Amino acid sequence: MSQPDPLLPSNLFGEIDPPQRLLMGPGPVNAHPRVLRAMSADLLGQFDPEMTGYMNQVMALYRPIFGTANRWTMLVDGTARAGIEAALVSLVAPGDRVLVVNFGRFGLLLTEILGRIGAVIETVDAPWGQVVPMDAIAAAIERTAPKLVATIHGDTSTTMAQPLNGLGALCHAAGALLYVDATATIGGMELATDRWGADIVTGGLQKCLGGPSGSAPITISDRAAEVIFARRHTEAGIRMAELADGAGPRIGSNYFDLAMIMDYWSDKRLNHHTEATTMLYGARECARLMLGEGLEARYARHAAAGRAMTAGLRAMGLTVFGDDAHRMTNVTGVFIPEGVEGEAIRTMMREAFEIEIGTAFGPLSGKIWRIGAMGYNAARHKVLITLNALESCLRREGFALAPGAAVDAAMEAWSRV
Amino acid sequence: MSQPDPLLPSNLFGEIDPPQRLLMGPGPVNAHPRVLRAMSADLLGQFDPEMTGYMNQVMALYRPIFGTANRWTMLVDGTARAGIEAALVSLVAPGDRVLVVNFGRFGLLLTEILGRIGAVIETVDAPWGQVVPMDAIAAAIERTAPKLVATIHGDTSTTMAQPLNGLGALCHAAGALLYVDATATIGGMELATDRWGADIVTGGLQKCLGGPSGSAPITISDRAAEVIFARRHTEAGIRMAELADGAGPRIGSNYFDLAMIMDYWSDKRLNHHTEATTMLYGARECARLMLGEGLEARYARHAAAGRAMTAGLRAMGLTVFGDDAHRMTNVTGVFIPEGVEGEAIRTMMREAFEIEIGTAFGPLSGKIWRIGAMGYNAARHKVLITLNALESCLRREGFALAPGAAVDAAMEAWSRV
Repeated sequence: MSQPDPLLPSNLFGEIDPPQRLLMGPGPVNAHPRVLRAMSADLLGQFDPEMTGYMNQVMALYRPIFGTANRWTMLVDGTARAGIEAALVSLVAPGDRVLVVNFGRFGLLLTEILGRIGAVIETVDAPWGQVVPMDAIAAAIERTAPKLVATIHGDTSTTMAQPLNGLGALCHAAGALLYVDATATIGGMELATDRWGADIVTGGLQKCLGGPSGSAPITISDRAAEVIFARRHTEAGIRMAELADGAGPRIGSNYFDLAMIMDYWSDKRLNHHTEATTMLYGARECARLMLGEGLEARYARHAAAGRAMTAGLRAMGLTVFGDDAHRMTNVTGVFIPEGVEGEAIRTMMREAFEIEIGTAFGPLSGKIWRIGAMGYNAARHKVLITLNALESCLRREGFALAPGAAVDAAMEAWSRV
Repeated sequence: MSQPDPLLPSNLFGEIDPPQRLLMGPGPVNAHPRVLRAMSADLLGQFDPEMTGYMNQVMALYRPIFGTANRWTMLVDGTARAGIEAALVSLVAPGDRVLVVNFGRFGLLLTEILGRIGAVIETVDAPWGQVVPMDAIAAAIERTAPKLVATIHGDTSTTMAQPLNGLGALCHAAGALLYVDATATIGGMELATDRWGADIVTGGLQKCLGGPSGSAPITISDRAAEVIFARRHTEAGIRMAELADGAGPRIGSNYFDLAMIMDYWSDKRLNHHTEATTMLYGARECARLMLGEGLEARYARHAAAGRAMTAGLRAMGLTVFGDDAHRMTNVTGVFIPEGVEGEAIRTMMREAFEIEIGTAFGPLSGKIWRIGAMGYNAARHKVLITLNALESCLRREGFALAPGAAVDAAMEAWSRV
């Protein structure tokens, strides 16, 4: 062409070449290189026996990660939030009463999603920085008689981890199901789906599993699957004789219809959306890395990283946010000290050290930073490098601290049991 | 541990190593190696200026691909179907009347998604293998006075491509918006969003764009954006003063709320889900490949591949399915000849030649194969290899044909203008 097309960008932009940032915020974090390499494998057709074989492997690999024997353990094709919405829209019909255990932004997100579904929403709340006591949840269940109790496991907005032992039994005794959002803990803190008695648990790859955002692991109990299959309404274009429609109300979303997604992941191999194969390869490699490391070793590594980060921040003279007894192991909230500009420090961290730490939301916005050590980044050297960099930035902003104390405290804390 | 954990798989399964299949079905197809390599780049935080810079590049790169100057041109984080649902749930409120132009399975899918949204659905239909005449659509618009007209551009279930010139003007004159699902044509047949007058067009990577499934390019006219922003209800956890709620009914999905997604892709950088960065890198590389090749060359290559495949199949003595005047260029339906077992041929193609061709849905199930040549696979040698393999399989099943005729006809047709 003699004339450049006016719709074309003046150049095609360069080859992808992001700066090598160390992502020590509340997630996403850097993916493990093995995960990214696995994602460059060639594609397969969605019903190819090799593809469905990989799908079956993914189901087996994620069961121990969720701490479950649930048959229905698979992936939702979207980010972690897609898994949350799939769980809620498939379980909850308009007018159903749902109790949300709310102790941070992601509890609010559950109410937000449920509101759009048309649920009647009850909440039992804790102030940001605390968790909800089990007896308060029990009283709220008795008071509200919900069909579903929905909670976050670890809420990165407050860095708190809600204790869940015994909650499933409470729910089931009251005729309710239990949903748990484990986006921020899967791969870093123990998930005990079966011991908790949770009916659906969902996660994401982009935090402690050390993968990219875009695939949401999910596990579904037989009890929950029964509720969902009672709402099965297969698409007109692809009905099969063996997929009878259920008597329950149709699920409000097609893409997030877990009945159809389970039928795709079963031997029926119902055609639904085209599986996101590259993300599935990545999710599979995340799981292989985790099982290869060992669950106990994995959780201990995250605990050591969190312990070291917290000790280092305190040795710098900073005040850690929230209830010590219920802190997530993989992300630490820390108050921005008086006289220090929080965003200036974050910018200096990024520009001088290529390290990202997190800002905060809502009532904590401008008050705390959130510093994570998740997945591939839950490593001693990355904790130490981050602490040293933060020390430098604070020092250059005029904050008085004891040089070197953070690294010393972190090294000591890493090894402590 | 002395005892293996009973929940752990007995081994961790092997490293990812799929067979090298040539995917010549209706999609997904093999991704271009450059796309897969781009996806192994390191991750970035979701508000990192380098990340938001890549997002802005993606917006610029997809405008010419959609044939639009629309500001709101971006990605939905999910498969192509996620893009469809995001468009429909963001535009349509319960009780809104929608006219679906229905000529195959994916028209049925639109009605299916709309039914779950609570729309009042009208259809104007063509038998499978034909398209809907423009005057029939005009009459249906007049009869039904819809708020939205929704259509498929190319429906792979029937291999038909619906003509869309003039449809936007018809819709707008009647006060309706126009939605087009271009999943199966984007990157292979010309999209002319602005010339058609389409208000939202969505696509996917896994067909003619030569990428993996899992990201859905979307473009939204200012007219449609206004309708969507009137339904803006930002989440409680992240409200900003400059994001006033609209007076319209809240959008029925959080994940697919295009108002919030546009606010994330704008300078406001509203926190919504964590962007699927690796898929974004892939989508960006798909676009760079396409613009580097040139739009006209790209469409001509797909047209040549479709022409060659069709000519080859006919020279083998097979009958091509559907209306010749409205055939998609990138996928061909062909009748399974009498006395030949369709699935046996597909299995032989896969096992002996590592080539996948497609089966069919609904009324065409067991009657036709669907053979594609899309994206990275819209190449002369892949068409020839596929035709030779199919010839071998048919010959071995006892079907009488003129050996070599298919390749001769395809080579001739490839070069014809």
